[in-house]
Amino acid sequence: MDERALKRVVMEVAGRDAVLDDCAVLRVGDRFLVASTDMLHASTDFPNGMTDWQVGWMSVAVTLSDIAAMGAEPADILLAVGLDDPSRLRNILEGAKSCCETYGARFAGGDLDSHRELTLVSSGIGLSLNPVRRAGSNPGEVIGIVGIPGRAQAALEGHTQYQQYLFTPLPRVEEGRVLAAAGVSSMMDVSDGLISSLFDMKEANSCGYEIFSSRIPIIQGIPRDRGLDLALRGGGDFGLLFTCRPEILPQPIPDLYVIGRVIEEPAVKLDGRPVTLDGYQHHWD
Amino acid sequence: MDERALKRVVMEVAGRDAVLDDCAVLRVGDRFLVASTDMLHASTDFPNGMTDWQVGWMSVAVTLSDIAAMGAEPADILLAVGLDDPSRLRNILEGAKSCCETYGARFAGGDLDSHRELTLVSSGIGLSLNPVRRAGSNPGEVIGIVGIPGRAQAALEGHTQYQQYLFTPLPRVEEGRVLAAAGVSSMMDVSDGLISSLFDMKEANSCGYEIFSSRIPIIQGIPRDRGLDLALRGGGDFGLLFTCRPEILPQPIPDLYVIGRVIEEPAVKLDGRPVTLDGYQHHWD
Repeated sequence: MDERALKRVVMEVAGRDAVLDDCAVLRVGDRFLVASTDMLHASTDFPNGMTDWQVGWMSVAVTLSDIAAMGAEPADILLAVGLDDPSRLRNILEGAKSCCETYGARFAGGDLDSHRELTLVSSGIGLSLNPVRRAGSNPGEVIGIVGIPGRAQAALEGHTQYQQYLFTPLPRVEEGRVLAAAGVSSMMDVSDGLISSLFDMKEANSCGYEIFSSRIPIIQGIPRDRGLDLALRGGGDFGLLFTCRPEILPQPIPDLYVIGRVIEEPAVKLDGRPVTLDGYQHHWD
Repeated sequence: MDERALKRVVMEVAGRDAVLDDCAVLRVGDRFLVASTDMLHASTDFPNGMTDWQVGWMSVAVTLSDIAAMGAEPADILLAVGLDDPSRLRNILEGAKSCCETYGARFAGGDLDSHRELTLVSSGIGLSLNPVRRAGSNPGEVIGIVGIPGRAQAALEGHTQYQQYLFTPLPRVEEGRVLAAAGVSSMMDVSDGLISSLFDMKEANSCGYEIFSSRIPIIQGIPRDRGLDLALRGGGDFGLLFTCRPEILPQPIPDLYVIGRVIEEPAVKLDGRPVTLDGYQHHWD
């Protein structure tokens, strides 16, 4: 059973809304609250060589990235820590707190438990007057990304010049807010890889997505073919994927690239040809 | 290092506010949002004999109990599931959803991961016009509890007539709201045991707490001495502990008991004698 099959179970029990966006959205007075939770644990999420401080940073960054993808302002972060060794706690919390402070969030508490495998679950709340959902793309719009995709995966494969993207990922909180304010029609984060994210977009919309390899930024210092593959399939990046009418694109955001267009046909295409979904997924035996 | 030593580390890094209440409190417009997260996992939190449905129920109930302890109205619940076996997912989610629906919360999504040990982290958001904190007790007030303490622990020790309190605990959401509306001065849940909770109350206040064994409701069907011990030290119940001026006590709430009074001296006392903190705690080697 792969991750998408399990997602179908979630959808059947909790409803389609529960899996459609990076955050749950709740109206509170004249504002919207967005909320997300993410589980990370030692055996699958913390690469060799990460310090405890970085582990703490990353555990908060994943949730801030979800809040960023809604174009919301981070407010509170809670961290549930399943701790394999009590001596690790301080550095993990210091890293978590530092990530909160960097992005203007409050490190508001959490839960503490012993666990045979270090397991961290951060939950975050953000506020927005007008959160951007995954649903909302319209044919004729452009597809944009913030962040060069594939850097985290490249680091994982030993290209140490990209290690910072793997060990201390930077959620695109400010860029998410600017894009939301500019009026982008749909947005999500690309932490599971670009192609996989386009399929998620397609699932939330009735249109399709065509991207062009010539427009995709490719990381330097590795063969171009491999670089393209990393950009398309590599997971672990904290970029944003969005769609909008071309004329509303905000003035230069560093690291923003227009890579394709929204099409009528409900498919994901690369250079005119449909692609299949074989990006990063957890697999279950 | 015991749980309280680790709590000190949390306090040093995240600040005293981060550990003082059952929920973080955030002002949003004219309302307050309360948020909590709780980690449960197979080896320490799910007793033998629990079904997956009950595991799902309990994972949500612990967080609803935190929201209840603030006197807030539950809004959204998120559940991060670290799954050891994909076939368990559906029943876990069904139990979680049922608990949400029972208490008027929305099961709003979450995260899904593979994990060698079943690990569930629920996070919840509630809303309140006037949340009740742990801090706020005043000498001369009475101490009340909702729920007979010790039933979950009794079940854990084989008294199967109390198994429902262990397997499908009922958070006191309605009672929390009624007590908050009545104007209780401080409140928390008693999931770590009554004595332990009184020490938590003391930590958040500058006064003390005296309870009387003759006033404490004792569960039936086991020797009275053991029953009192369970009531004082047993964890896993989902009751509420609160303080208030006696005249504001709301008219009969089933299962509400006045068990003592708030005193000037910053101590926890039973029948006039100080007691020590040796309730349920996780211990670390």
